[in-house]
Amino acid sequence: MASRTVLITGSTSGIGLGIARAFANAKYNVIFHGLEKNGSDIAAKIAREFQVAHLFSPANALHSDQLRTMVDEGLRRFKHIDVLVNNCGIQHVSPIETFPEDKWADILRINLTSAFILTKALMKPMKENKFGRIINVASAHGLFASEYKSAYVAAKHGLLGLTKATALEGAPFNINCNAICPGYVRTPLVDAQIRDQAKSHDIPESEVIPRVILQKHAVKKFVPIELIGNLSLLLADEISATLTGTAIPIDGGWSAQ
Amino acid sequence: MASRTVLITGSTSGIGLGIARAFANAKYNVIFHGLEKNGSDIAAKIAREFQVAHLFSPANALHSDQLRTMVDEGLRRFKHIDVLVNNCGIQHVSPIETFPEDKWADILRINLTSAFILTKALMKPMKENKFGRIINVASAHGLFASEYKSAYVAAKHGLLGLTKATALEGAPFNINCNAICPGYVRTPLVDAQIRDQAKSHDIPESEVIPRVILQKHAVKKFVPIELIGNLSLLLADEISATLTGTAIPIDGGWSAQ
Amino acid sequence: MASRTVLITGSTSGIGLGIARAFANAKYNVIFHGLEKNGSDIAAKIAREFQVAHLFSPANALHSDQLRTMVDEGLRRFKHIDVLVNNCGIQHVSPIETFPEDKWADILRINLTSAFILTKALMKPMKENKFGRIINVASAHGLFASEYKSAYVAAKHGLLGLTKATALEGAPFNINCNAICPGYVRTPLVDAQIRDQAKSHDIPESEVIPRVILQKHAVKKFVPIELIGNLSLLLADEISATLTGTAIPIDGGWSAQ
Amino acid sequence: MASRTVLITGSTSGIGLGIARAFANAKYNVIFHGLEKNGSDIAAKIAREFQVAHLFSPANALHSDQLRTMVDEGLRRFKHIDVLVNNCGIQHVSPIETFPEDKWADILRINLTSAFILTKALMKPMKENKFGRIINVASAHGLFASEYKSAYVAAKHGLLGLTKATALEGAPFNINCNAICPGYVRTPLVDAQIRDQAKSHDIPESEVIPRVILQKHAVKKFVPIELIGNLSLLLADEISATLTGTAIPIDGGWSAQ
Repeated sequence: MASRTVLITGSTSGIGLGIARAFANAKYNVIFHGLEKNGSDIAAKIAREFQVAHLFSPANALHSDQLRTMVDEGLRRFKHIDVLVNNCGIQHVSPIETFPEDKWADILRINLTSAFILTKALMKPMKENKFGRIINVASAHGLFASEYKSAYVAAKHGLLGLTKATALEGAPFNINCNAICPGYVRTPLVDAQIRDQAKSHDIPESEVIPRVILQKHAVKKFVPIELIGNLSLLLADEISATLTGTAIPIDGGWSAQ
Repeated sequence: MASRTVLITGSTSGIGLGIARAFANAKYNVIFHGLEKNGSDIAAKIAREFQVAHLFSPANALHSDQLRTMVDEGLRRFKHIDVLVNNCGIQHVSPIETFPEDKWADILRINLTSAFILTKALMKPMKENKFGRIINVASAHGLFASEYKSAYVAAKHGLLGLTKATALEGAPFNINCNAICPGYVRTPLVDAQIRDQAKSHDIPESEVIPRVILQKHAVKKFVPIELIGNLSLLLADEISATLTGTAIPIDGGWSAQ
Repeated sequence: MASRTVLITGSTSGIGLGIARAFANAKYNVIFHGLEKNGSDIAAKIAREFQVAHLFSPANALHSDQLRTMVDEGLRRFKHIDVLVNNCGIQHVSPIETFPEDKWADILRINLTSAFILTKALMKPMKENKFGRIINVASAHGLFASEYKSAYVAAKHGLLGLTKATALEGAPFNINCNAICPGYVRTPLVDAQIRDQAKSHDIPESEVIPRVILQKHAVKKFVPIELIGNLSLLLADEISATLTGTAIPIDGGWSAQ
Repeated sequence: MASRTVLITGSTSGIGLGIARAFANAKYNVIFHGLEKNGSDIAAKIAREFQVAHLFSPANALHSDQLRTMVDEGLRRFKHIDVLVNNCGIQHVSPIETFPEDKWADILRINLTSAFILTKALMKPMKENKFGRIINVASAHGLFASEYKSAYVAAKHGLLGLTKATALEGAPFNINCNAICPGYVRTPLVDAQIRDQAKSHDIPESEVIPRVILQKHAVKKFVPIELIGNLSLLLADEISATLTGTAIPIDGGWSAQ
């Protein structure tokens, strides 16, 4: 088998970067994507570390033409894109009555519509290849809500809907589509939250983590990004055609209670 | 108790009209909404039949300012809007790879974002009244997918996410929020589908209904609109504050199998 | 229409008694069941209050022959039993490693197998009548777990499985089957828990309720039994054939978060 | 790290045997269990093939003392049992009204209670080791029903409940617990069904598979046992503590539609 290619949105930091490392480690060519200023360097470094071919795109996920251009470049370079990981996303926290309409719209576009645009762009070539693996990085918030996250929760629920529709349409063509629903992962964003919450609740950071940040986890640990990478590789495997249309939580037991 | 007021989007035909009849029958003032050319007449006729006060708005659900104007007029006329039923929606059927991006965007805006806009507009007055009931008419497609309905499925899943977030934010204020997830309801739209399918499959209409249209129903009957009305009234009841954040299927057993 | 008959297990106290009152108020004949020593008096009193015919059975839910006898007596007396409400249940709280095997077995038999026995006994007469409504009173614990309630959680999940299977088998015969999944309801049992928890946590009872007992509710109120009664009546309605196979939470938003 | 030990019920045939092969291939010691007459030979052959230590138990899953004896022998031999896979199960197909009560009871005991007994026996040693991985092989029927499988559906739903309760109780002790929910897997049992259905529907076997056996799959292929093995290994991994309390379908898209 010639080496497989994966395209991962939002892969120059956080969960997406971890998934990129997992695929690079498994010798996939990687199409990186992200808005970090040094995204190109981050991508090149990973590719060097794991000795895989790569491409980097700074496509703005708000603009579908930029997303399509990324796909076109990827297809030109690697002939086929075998695995698509829709991971990019933004968050905004506000009560509904003051939630800015433009933030709502942007969250839907970046967290949900970008996945539709990329799935749409890759469905035909994947069908022609009789192979495709699509992984949507949703969230425990694709299954449940938290206060003040209406747009994020709606977008992630919507992403689960898209996952199921894609799974059904891909079923006759050896294309699976699944969603991963992580709970809390330790990212730079969360580090900042810990500091803020410790200050505002006036309790030490060591207490903020289990009691505030991980309140909904039964397992009082952050989800390791490496585990999300492992699951992604399993979903992308040749053998996994019948594993499709699912929403798999990795959430420390949140969804069980 | 002074009489309660309900605002129902998409209420000049189909399910919305049925819900309007149920609330009118229960002596609610009704704010009708819809794009039917004779919407104003339809609304007036129902109001006359049940002897209730009413208002009619032809707000275009794509335009948030028109939706807000509708709310403002309703509040001016009835002082408070006690129940909001987000029911309006459109459908478009196409494989993902040819699904028009503008159709995707319109479906998200009409089926999902309009509910956000109206919830946002009413959350504050409902909190001040310490009473509110929000009913989102989703679909079995809020829980499951069908081929070629990616946008509709994504929007309806998203609407369930919004439902849960609204429920949590409304919880301390005696505001509940629930979704109803109907299976197939006999509407003029479905009548046309039956004729088309009978022709394209070359089988009598009496067979099209159980085998094609109601294929996913275990109960081979359409969902009566009156039942959706009854459930809506229960959800809107004074006593129903703790019944919140749910997605209730009325789908002939689809979700059980 | 001749008057309908409902059989409700565990109906001489708590939720079951509330459901019995709702059906009596709607002029159903009521077959009461329970192990309260004065169960017969409780039943007679409700029947008198609402002027309905009734029967009382002290069948031990551990013994399937006693349950069958209750059904036989009911059919003899009222010709048909139109609505079956499987409500009886027991609880036991213990870590899994010390959970007594006989408690596990009893909980499965009383909370789950009794519903199977009664459904089995009534399925044939309901099919012959081309009418039946079966309501299984499960719990939020039919959808989610809490620590130390392994048997109860397993039995209530199992009851949701039975609900779905019954719904599918009943579908062609105008028999629906649904589960209601209450969160916390104020019963004498819960009153005792409040006192105990207040003592053990050394906080006032007014704090125990929102913080301990209703910890998983977003709405910090107990579920009113009357609401469970209202929903039961809706599920039992003539019109509700297509409302089947569902698990409807009334849980203060627990399942939304 | 000393080599890990897995106990797998029902592992001398079908899915259990496939899971045993996966763990043996990963160099786990394997405790086999099953009622096949040549179970001991089957176990020895796998152990030889993969060069791992093993034990075989013909414990009757209806008898909790025999299950406990199996655990005791396993602990004596391997010091600790790190992974428990509750896989054994039986099926019986019948309409509810004629479903034999003893079949119902046996299915609950073998498919559900045996998992409780083994979890109970291993919870304490796993807590002491601060490591445990429990995998319950449920079924798509743990999430949805099919006609005439009331007991199986109830037991598998119950197993999901036990999974969640175990996950919560194990959370502070590095014990995870998850359920795998396969759709249709090609086993000798299914081969027989294919022949029967082909005869009774009078259609060729090649049509029976997609149209009858795999009717609920969107992907018209059987689930490969090797995939269930791969997922089991992922769930059993050191890194997977926060992946807990889930029910992961591998069902060809059944649960998505």
